[in-house]
Amino acid sequence: MTTDRSATAAGTSRDWRTFEPVPLTPILAGALEAFYEHGYHGTTVRDIARRVGVTVPALYYHHPSKEALFVTLLLLGTDDVADRAEAAVADADDAVQALSNLTEVVVLHMTTRHKLAALDLEARYLGQESRARYAAPRRRIDALVDRVVADGVESGQFHPTDVHEAARALLGMWQSIARWFRDDGTLSGEEIAARYVPLSLATVGHGG
Amino acid sequence: MTTDRSATAAGTSRDWRTFEPVPLTPILAGALEAFYEHGYHGTTVRDIARRVGVTVPALYYHHPSKEALFVTLLLLGTDDVADRAEAAVADADDAVQALSNLTEVVVLHMTTRHKLAALDLEARYLGQESRARYAAPRRRIDALVDRVVADGVESGQFHPTDVHEAARALLGMWQSIARWFRDDGTLSGEEIAARYVPLSLATVGHGG
Repeated sequence: MTTDRSATAAGTSRDWRTFEPVPLTPILAGALEAFYEHGYHGTTVRDIARRVGVTVPALYYHHPSKEALFVTLLLLGTDDVADRAEAAVADADDAVQALSNLTEVVVLHMTTRHKLAALDLEARYLGQESRARYAAPRRRIDALVDRVVADGVESGQFHPTDVHEAARALLGMWQSIARWFRDDGTLSGEEIAARYVPLSLATVGHGG
Repeated sequence: MTTDRSATAAGTSRDWRTFEPVPLTPILAGALEAFYEHGYHGTTVRDIARRVGVTVPALYYHHPSKEALFVTLLLLGTDDVADRAEAAVADADDAVQALSNLTEVVVLHMTTRHKLAALDLEARYLGQESRARYAAPRRRIDALVDRVVADGVESGQFHPTDVHEAARALLGMWQSIARWFRDDGTLSGEEIAARYVPLSLATVGHGG
């Protein structure tokens, strides 16, 4: 199944490295700022409407609830990075290149889109149906990291003590970047990605 | 397992490996459950009072605000793990042992006390004064990880591309455990710690 995706993505050769700004409507852009600053529970529909400069009924005309706004933003980011991650891995000839590309694309997501990426921290507060919708792209990414690490073990390039734990550790390491990254920080997304490629390879026991 | 290891650690200033239950008053225990389930913004003082079975005025008699309750819990966990981390590093003869001990103690904190540890995710919603109080033990831990990685570089045992970034990656990897750990999961805290020791050593480029 994943191999089919890789084949397709390799054929289309998507430019997974270029993170253009995510096109957001004014309401979604305002909601993202509010969720980033005050969290899911700390934000009300009224706050978002005031921030955007629309009435509450006008906001409800486009989005049925605060949860719907949150899930729309959450899926926008996660579906996109899952697509890019699959393209990045399809672009690689071996496990070392695959993990390098995967690290690069996920770290670029965590930095250039850190406000979208940070929504993940609060996904657990959503209702069951919303969490299930979010779980789908999350599972694609988790499975991809597992597969890349397992491929590297099979090819003799990686030597982790435990494939799944190493994959989970990589995801934790990458995701934490969205918590500290700031647009006005000293390092750009590209510079951070360049540092995390050797760190990630080392974590799975690829001799430097 | 904890008992065996405690015996090995006998003679040291502090038994940093034994995580006894944190003694919490009923109000603090109820507040911790509420914050864990619904987050800082999703919890009200009224929710906590109802959960504990006290009146709101009775709760305010002991704790001036929701923020005060949150900060008390946050510092209980973080001050304790900072003390333990320093004892764990003091117990080591070289950088490899220091990073192994440090990984073990932080992972045991993230697992056996994962509800306290998860509060860190929402510390950014606190007011400036509370954030400053929390920053003190956090800085002790951050500085300790930086120092241990730098010591290993100096002794020629670690080979990270960048000392500070490797230290930050380790912290991100460890902290993320509190997000997925469950008491009824398949792995115990000790088992997870045992897996993260080689992963952490690999991350800083210690040849396995």
